[in-house]
This record gives sequence, C-alpha cells and structure tokens, in this order.
Amino acid sequence: MLMERRPFLSHARCEPAVPGVVLDQNGQPMATQLPGERALTIYLDKREIVTLMTLGQNPEALVLGYLRNQRLIDDIRDIAELHVSWEVSVAAVSTYRGDAGERCEDLLLRRTVTSGCGQGTQFGNALERLQPLHDDGFRVARSTVFALLEQVRQLDTVYKRCGAVHGCVLADSERILHHVEDIGRNNAVDSISGLMWLEGRSGNGAGSRKLFYTTGRLTSEMVIKTVEMGIPVLISRSGTTERGLDIARHGGLTLIGRAWNERFLVFNGSERIDFTK
Amino acid sequence: MLMERRPFLSHARCEPAVPGVVLDQNGQPMATQLPGERALTIYLDKREIVTLMTLGQNPEALVLGYLRNQRLIDDIRDIAELHVSWEVSVAAVSTYRGDAGERCEDLLLRRTVTSGCGQGTQFGNALERLQPLHDDGFRVARSTVFALLEQVRQLDTVYKRCGAVHGCVLADSERILHHVEDIGRNNAVDSISGLMWLEGRSGNGAGSRKLFYTTGRLTSEMVIKTVEMGIPVLISRSGTTERGLDIARHGGLTLIGRAWNERFLVFNGSERIDFTK
Repeated sequence: MLMERRPFLSHARCEPAVPGVVLDQNGQPMATQLPGERALTIYLDKREIVTLMTLGQNPEALVLGYLRNQRLIDDIRDIAELHVSWEVSVAAVSTYRGDAGERCEDLLLRRTVTSGCGQGTQFGNALERLQPLHDDGFRVARSTVFALLEQVRQLDTVYKRCGAVHGCVLADSERILHHVEDIGRNNAVDSISGLMWLEGRSGNGAGSRKLFYTTGRLTSEMVIKTVEMGIPVLISRSGTTERGLDIARHGGLTLIGRAWNERFLVFNGSERIDFTK
Repeated sequence: MLMERRPFLSHARCEPAVPGVVLDQNGQPMATQLPGERALTIYLDKREIVTLMTLGQNPEALVLGYLRNQRLIDDIRDIAELHVSWEVSVAAVSTYRGDAGERCEDLLLRRTVTSGCGQGTQFGNALERLQPLHDDGFRVARSTVFALLEQVRQLDTVYKRCGAVHGCVLADSERILHHVEDIGRNNAVDSISGLMWLEGRSGNGAGSRKLFYTTGRLTSEMVIKTVEMGIPVLISRSGTTERGLDIARHGGLTLIGRAWNERFLVFNGSERIDFTK
C-alpha cells in the first residue's frame, strides 16, 4: 500500500556525552561531561546539500526533518533510503526517482541564514507560502501548560548532565510524545518534524491539538516551522523576537514564552488558553 | 597612505527593541519589550551572498565581520563601500576590484551549516586552515575574570529589557572595549570581529592579550572564530561541546565556561590562569 511506504532507515544514534575533566575557579580538578558535536554531511541523490553539526541522538529524524522543513522533499514516500554513517560523517539519502539532488540546485542558491541556533537555513521564501493554522476549537487549560512544564523538568536530559544543548518536546494535552535534544535549536525542531513525518503526520492538520515546547528563543524560523507542522501552541522557556510575534499573528499560532516554574507569558493567541482551569 | 584606507560605511543602526503587550499566566495584561529581528541581504559586488537575520545594532560591523570570518574578503582595504539600507533590507558591499562576488561562487557552494545560534555558516574547511595561537606569555588573574563578569553584569543590555538575544564582549585586562548584542551568537561575534577589523586588528596577533566573553554556548565555530581573531581567552556563561574543546586544544585557546557569579570552569589552557590572584 502506497500510504504505508516508508524509507529504509539506518539507526545510527550515538552516545551524546563524553566524560572530561575541568578545573574550577580555585584550580581544583572536577569531572564533567561534554555534549558531542558531530559533522553530518547530507547527500541527496549523490548531491552534497549541507553539513549539519549535531549531537547525533536521532540523526535519521534530523535529516528527514531538515529535508522536509527546507522543502527539499515534499513527500516522505519519495525517499527510498536514508543511511547515516558516522565513520564518514555522511547521511546518504536516495529517492525513488533519483533526481531530487538536481531539483535542489536553484533552492541551494537562495539560502537564508537565519538567526537560529542550529542549522538556521531556509530555502526560498517560507513566509510567503505560510498557510495560517485552522482553528479546530482546540483549547488548553493553564494547568495543562503547568503539567507539561513539570514533565519537561523531570526528563532525564543531556542538558542536565552537560549543558550547552537545546531540547524540544512534542506533546498532547496528556503527555510527552517526543523529546529530542541537539546542539542547536533548529536541529531539535527538525528532528521532531522528521519523527512526525515518519508517523504520517504531515500536511494540513498534522500537528493538530498538539503542543510544542522548546528551550530555545522564538526567532522567526522557529515560529514558521511550528506553523508549518500544523501545531497550534508553541511554548518556550525563553522569549520571542518582534518578527517571531508577527509570524505567529499571521499564522494564528498561540505563542507562550518565559515558561517555567508555574509562570508564563502569552505573546499571541490567548483565545486558546483557558486561564480559569 | 594605503594602510589607513578604510571603506566608506553607512551608519544604519536601528532601534533594537519595540514595545508590546502580553498576558501573564493569570490572563493579566502587562507591558513588555521585544527585540527586533530584521532581514539583511548581503550583496558583494552586486552578487547576492546571504541573508542574515539581525537585531541591527551595528549592521556594518556585522557585515564586515561576516565577510571576514567566512573568508570572502581577505583585506579590509579591498572594500570601497558598505552601505546598509533598511528600506530594502540590503547591505551593498563593493570592492575596488569589483570581482569579489564572482570569486565567492565556489565557496558559496560549500557552506557548512553549523550548530551555532545565529548565522552558523562556514565556507570551506576552516579547521584545516586554523593557525594555533602564539603564546606571548599573557596571563590572566582569577580576579580579572571576576571583574570582567561583574562589568558585563552591569551593562545596560537589550537582554535585560527583552531577553531572547545573545551578547559578546571584547575586553582587555582592564576594561570592556566592545559590546554587541544580536539575535544569534554568531552575529554578535562577527560584529566584534568587524569592529576589530576596522581598527586594524587583524591577522596574526590581532586579538593579542584580549579576552572574549559570550553569553552563548561554545560550539565549534565559536571556538574557531576566537582563535582566528587571535584572542587567547574565551569565556562563556554557558558550556562547550566536545568538538569545541578539541579545537581549543588544537588552537592553544584558554576556554572558560559556566562563568557567572564568581564561579567558572576552565576547560582548556589553565596555564594562562593565575588562580592565586
């Protein structure tokens, strides 16, 4: 059945942290852990697309999400194989038609280097193509936001051990569905996007009734990606930029910032929040 | 005198913050400020190079630093004019020879999207070309690090008003020389690099006896840029990655992380730190 066709994927997850020794401010040695940072060059139908620097926790999801969010591949069913090899730092992606690399040429020449941590590229003009979210009546109780923040706080994270990474969470009103950490914000959100793509959640209504949490700042490309994933509520531990807010308004996205410890600020879309529950 | 030749520069600094209204977790409105995030497309000798998203505090320095750190221009004296116009979101750079845009073609096809917040691109293989720092006997007292952290804490920053930005500081053992904030870490460090270039501090020994402070994480490209600027001590409020540490070792850079409130960790190069003073 065509609908069920999924690409063949490697499973090249690698250890996210390595031990190290540092000196404290008194010159005393102490043990620490450092997050890994690996180069991964994506080849699409044998054409070099980009090199991402990643923690490597879910490289296949990262590559899928990158290809999807940069609109280099429209349909996951076009992908035959995705093979990550850390020995050569390569993610080799092949499509059934075998011509995806060539079609990317024009797009590759129009990259925007955005303000995000992480990959921070956007091909073409994503904003012009942005479809505003459909309001399906989804509402979120204040207590649901608090509960999600508490679940996030309790996660066993690379951040707790090492620092210097960002985390993203996809959740519904009950629980966390996916949690990914990476060196940069954009890698983490792309990995979630790749996981949603694998599960068949793409296109219109894909992220319906979901919440997206990130530790990172809400710059324009983070907000664009959330709207493109069809997720109505974006929550950050940090704040947003003026342009991030503009895009949230344009896209009908509920934007919550400064969210931690039973506090948050609603920058846009407060009609989806029930402050009484 | 050739040595004194400087490019003609516009002065297109723009207001970094805009006022806004948010709701708190109880649904109560409160005033806030948001950092601006503006697109700036760099044209080099009429050829489109990249679009950066920036706070716009010092766009000319940002563009200069970007061209320098990506090794698109080797000598600032080659640049005739750099004109930023926010009306059209363009930074137009022209060189005396007028052929810099063409020479960038090959480099543009080999971009690495790095893990940094901010622009996060590197043209070509920066690591291979990295020249280790020359040890000129520069030593830093622990009290100097503490004093710098205190000066940074007292700065009047966009971060204090808005959050969601990163800051960088260039200092000597006495005082802060430059302070730049931007949406992403790399924009801030590139802006400092541009300011140093304008002052004639480039090439070997450029950042000699200086300290560089950043609020951002020390991923590989941040460490590479610091070594390339010739600055022997890099201090971050955050931590480093495994690769960031590897590059610091390779480059002979003193790497200090988790620096705040009279505490810090020395990840590499502790021989430059005098823990007794």
